[in-house]
Amino acid sequence: MPLTREQDPVPPDGAGRPAPRAAYPDHLRTVIEDYLAQLRFEVDPESAGLEEAMRYSLLAGGKRIRPVLALATAAAIGREPTSVLPLAAAIELIHTYSLIHDDLPAMDDDDLRRGRPTCHKAFGEDVAILAGDGLYAEAFVLLLSRQQAPANRLLAAALELARATGAQGMVAGQYIDVAGTAQAGPDGLRRLHALKTGRLIAASVECVLLLEGISEPERIHSFSSFARELGVLFQIVDDILDVTGSPETLGKQQGSDERLGKRTYVTEFGVEGARELAARSHARARAALSQAAGGAGSHSTAELEQITDFIANRSF
Amino acid sequence: MPLTREQDPVPPDGAGRPAPRAAYPDHLRTVIEDYLAQLRFEVDPESAGLEEAMRYSLLAGGKRIRPVLALATAAAIGREPTSVLPLAAAIELIHTYSLIHDDLPAMDDDDLRRGRPTCHKAFGEDVAILAGDGLYAEAFVLLLSRQQAPANRLLAAALELARATGAQGMVAGQYIDVAGTAQAGPDGLRRLHALKTGRLIAASVECVLLLEGISEPERIHSFSSFARELGVLFQIVDDILDVTGSPETLGKQQGSDERLGKRTYVTEFGVEGARELAARSHARARAALSQAAGGAGSHSTAELEQITDFIANRSF
Repeated sequence: MPLTREQDPVPPDGAGRPAPRAAYPDHLRTVIEDYLAQLRFEVDPESAGLEEAMRYSLLAGGKRIRPVLALATAAAIGREPTSVLPLAAAIELIHTYSLIHDDLPAMDDDDLRRGRPTCHKAFGEDVAILAGDGLYAEAFVLLLSRQQAPANRLLAAALELARATGAQGMVAGQYIDVAGTAQAGPDGLRRLHALKTGRLIAASVECVLLLEGISEPERIHSFSSFARELGVLFQIVDDILDVTGSPETLGKQQGSDERLGKRTYVTEFGVEGARELAARSHARARAALSQAAGGAGSHSTAELEQITDFIANRSF
Repeated sequence: MPLTREQDPVPPDGAGRPAPRAAYPDHLRTVIEDYLAQLRFEVDPESAGLEEAMRYSLLAGGKRIRPVLALATAAAIGREPTSVLPLAAAIELIHTYSLIHDDLPAMDDDDLRRGRPTCHKAFGEDVAILAGDGLYAEAFVLLLSRQQAPANRLLAAALELARATGAQGMVAGQYIDVAGTAQAGPDGLRRLHALKTGRLIAASVECVLLLEGISEPERIHSFSSFARELGVLFQIVDDILDVTGSPETLGKQQGSDERLGKRTYVTEFGVEGARELAARSHARARAALSQAAGGAGSHSTAELEQITDFIANRSF
């Protein structure tokens, strides 16, 4: 499907030409997809239904942005991407768990996710809650049992992952979202999303640095700035797509933010205003990445650039 | 309230005299209670309500059997109990999370817990789901950031905790319980409970050994046998109390197993049969503990003995 202005969240350069569809590092996506597909949780026959629900949600496809980001970060610091596969997969398990719980009737009450019935629609609410709980636990099992790294670095990465997804991270953001306690104005909105989606996206970059023992403060700072800006960009585009996308391209109901009365970048700034914000966020992310790349010596940040451009221009 | 035969799950010795109420290591309980009370999750003002829900459930009292077991295990191997406080508290955070999710309308649908409204009754279902999610994440934050230990031992303990609570542990047991997929007969029931409650109770002992670097296979085996039998004993007594207890002593509705049509040790063996099983399980746990104590040199297993007797005779 050709991109139209309506589906292109970031304004095109110059005189109204649509931006080209950004390339995506599909080779990394294939690597993570294959790794996830072979994961088994070694359950007993009595709990086979639990594993089925966990794998149903885990293997529903998607762009795998977070784990691909982790693999691309490894490449950018001169490491073999596959060396961080268990970490990358653990992050996708956690992301999947968060989607399952977000979709529950008591939360966003969504029936569709990635074009298929949500976990609780397919397996029941009780099983969906447990599938989410199980995926979160198994993320730590995977990281702590399969990821090769010196013990102190592995501990640091696991701690960052727990922090990014706990009461000062993802779960806090989700709470602020459902409880409607975000402070008024753009700062409140930015803070909500920095927690709800930004922290895990940033952790996909930062945990790789921790695992690989990168310790230069400037380098860490550049990568962190990049990662956090990428989280913001992702959310602005997500809010735009919730209004401009179709159920087919979104894989879920369009307009669910409006239905839930949520404050979004679109409700705060309008679609055009949000597009301008996205363009500025995109520019900041690219600038931070250039700075990080400078510190990365001769290693390639090409894949991180692709992911950044893809997030800015995605229309799925 | 004096013990009556009706509230005493384990048959008395000899000629019908009620068993004396077992002592409980309250000094250890006070230590863990104080530690839990000072825990803050350092949230922002916008998510203060999340922390409130987490602490509401965490500080609802109870005997703190799992963390007290961890502290008593440290004493039994000649270590200072307070040296494993972060681990012990992390285990109680996880136990609390599991109770919050178990109580949800989609699961056991309980309104009362420890004599107070359950988390979802007090804060709403969405907040309760997130409070549980947050407590699980913060358990790992606590363990990985505050527990002093060589990195490789800390990793081993964290991994065991994740395994004990994941798709091969607690969550699997809960799945088997709600899905009703336990195999027929006592073995199926034993397996269900070994997963649902036994693994975390056992982990309360085993993680301390891992953290302290205990490596003699025989010693580990004795402690593990003790810990796993303790989990079985706990569950048999729990099932008896669900039938014979009152809401006042239980802190929750009596008869909830029957209401949910659950298979329990009482539905399988009757109250008297279950009491006999409890007595046998109690004897096995004490025997395994004696063996573990032999390996522990001159250190005291007095507190572990107290906990074992207390679990056998509890009537709260």
